Amino acid sequence: MAVHAVVMAGGSGTRFWPLSTADRPKQLLPLGPSPQSLLACTVARVAPLVPPERVWVVTTERIADAVRHDLPAVPPAQVLAEPLGRNTAPCIAWAASRIAAVDPDATLLVLPADHHIGDEAAFLDVLRTAIAASESGALVTCGIVPTRPETGYGYLELGAEVAPGVARCARFVEKPDRARAEAFLAQGGFLWNSGLFVFRADALLAAVQAHLPELHEGLRKLSAAAAAGADVEAALLSVLYPTLPSISIDHGVMERAERVLVVPGSFGWSDLGSYETAHELGEKDAAGNVVRADAVLVDSRGNFVHAPAGKKVALLGVDDLVIVDTGDVLLVLPRARCQEVKRLQS
Amino acid sequence: MAVHAVVMAGGSGTRFWPLSTADRPKQLLPLGPSPQSLLACTVARVAPLVPPERVWVVTTERIADAVRHDLPAVPPAQVLAEPLGRNTAPCIAWAASRIAAVDPDATLLVLPADHHIGDEAAFLDVLRTAIAASESGALVTCGIVPTRPETGYGYLELGAEVAPGVARCARFVEKPDRARAEAFLAQGGFLWNSGLFVFRADALLAAVQAHLPELHEGLRKLSAAAAAGADVEAALLSVLYPTLPSISIDHGVMERAERVLVVPGSFGWSDLGSYETAHELGEKDAAGNVVRADAVLVDSRGNFVHAPAGKKVALLGVDDLVIVDTGDVLLVLPRARCQEVKRLQS
Repeated sequence: MAVHAVVMAGGSGTRFWPLSTADRPKQLLPLGPSPQSLLACTVARVAPLVPPERVWVVTTERIADAVRHDLPAVPPAQVLAEPLGRNTAPCIAWAASRIAAVDPDATLLVLPADHHIGDEAAFLDVLRTAIAASESGALVTCGIVPTRPETGYGYLELGAEVAPGVARCARFVEKPDRARAEAFLAQGGFLWNSGLFVFRADALLAAVQAHLPELHEGLRKLSAAAAAGADVEAALLSVLYPTLPSISIDHGVMERAERVLVVPGSFGWSDLGSYETAHELGEKDAAGNVVRADAVLVDSRGNFVHAPAGKKVALLGVDDLVIVDTGDVLLVLPRARCQEVKRLQS
Repeated sequence: MAVHAVVMAGGSGTRFWPLSTADRPKQLLPLGPSPQSLLACTVARVAPLVPPERVWVVTTERIADAVRHDLPAVPPAQVLAEPLGRNTAPCIAWAASRIAAVDPDATLLVLPADHHIGDEAAFLDVLRTAIAASESGALVTCGIVPTRPETGYGYLELGAEVAPGVARCARFVEKPDRARAEAFLAQGGFLWNSGLFVFRADALLAAVQAHLPELHEGLRKLSAAAAAGADVEAALLSVLYPTLPSISIDHGVMERAERVLVVPGSFGWSDLGSYETAHELGEKDAAGNVVRADAVLVDSRGNFVHAPAGKKVALLGVDDLVIVDTGDVLLVLPRARCQEVKRLQS
């Protein structure tokens, strides 16, 4: 049994505009504390479990070459380019099908490309537990022990423990309102649904066959085409992929499957969903500024400042702003309102 | 008697950094409502009284060519370049000496290059009154009727009226503290000392001879050199000019002279001393923003925004900021603190 990583890197990251663009979305940017892109960090983080030659990335045609450039150690053919996004079920099932073709006994770690993990050792421990739990053919999801009554994520409810650190998943819960989120936090036994999954490729494909037969049938045709040649698969992909059901792995498979387990973890997880989070995770000066620029700050606190090399930035008497200069675009808004950045993109 | 204009254009304009630079200081920038530079506006404004061929500009060697380029109708030789700044007395006296050499009967309008005038018709009326008052040989200064207890300017105290709209100047007052400035405003009879002067060239040179004999002697040598050729004057200038007394026309001449008159005026005068003033004078959108950029503003009020052509600026939820992007430098600070911009220049 070999472990392969499936990195989902198809996002567009509009909340990081203007740093994030269609040609260089969030996962290709160094938005965490590291100078590497979030994608490269994701791959580096699991290297103790999965060497680069067993890393697979599913992304969009538009950025596939940029992904290959960002991950020189990953075989270029393992960067799979979707003609368009059809949510996570087709993305993961396609990768599972491609991996099963070369390694029928493969176990898959499914990882979003654009998250931050503060405690990598704890993260790897959770993955090891999840890998062991998946050997029986269970579909395993990693849930994050919540630290605040977050309304932006779905939740998982823990069921009975089946092994140390492994429980049944009692149910999936849609994004709650504030009162419910607070109740979840007070009550305990609820975890954030992080989008981290571990399962055997064959188990996942069997669950897809059972619960999303249309998707399974599409994948069968793609596999046959792939066996006939990469160019044959590519030709079929462009007409077939758009017809696959657009549905998440949670709704399409996990919620319907019978043997779903959850491994709870606390490893400083963040979905890096906004400039506010990037500020929170970034290295700060004595006044709480995260400065990624050649900048002079006088009497200024709590700002997130980014500017291209060669640009001089001078701030005086401004607090808690996001100031992002990409050369083409300058964005200025309060950190507390950074979720509204979408209003500025036309 | 022909009227000549002497435009003082030697300032460095550090309060408009980063728009203003050593090679392109404030007077060469379009900081008022017009797309023309402040200097070009100054020359255009007096055109009804002084044609360009009788305009003289005193500036620094560093920007002399830029000044000539900005004022194509002014004869290039009438742009006089100081080797270094020696305050206003040498600047004005040198121009007077040069003008007297070609027009001994000249009357001079002395104008700062970097001020804004809101009511140009009223301004020209004041200048006409001052020109008439100067015919007798008096040194005339134009005082601005104050509209607020400003502590940043010197004041003139009005004496007895000697003709309609013309009074003796009782005294010059240094920049007052707040309490005194408020008293001046309440009491009346005090004017802002604007740096606008009108006098006959011969009267000014006689006063210089009487009160700044060292300066007069230097000018005599320069005149002799100029008579021998422009290159002879230029050679002498570089060694002689630095030795001239560095003193203002107010301290060096006006305060010591006997026949000093003042013409009070209200013509929407502003010294355009800061971004705050540029915002005040600029054309505003419905939310009070002055926007000199390709910008999208959402829920943002009272900002002064400048960016180069081609740059997109996006603001959300920010109020009363100065945001100036020159391409090389980005400045962000509250409008209310724009006097502190000097703290950011290293």
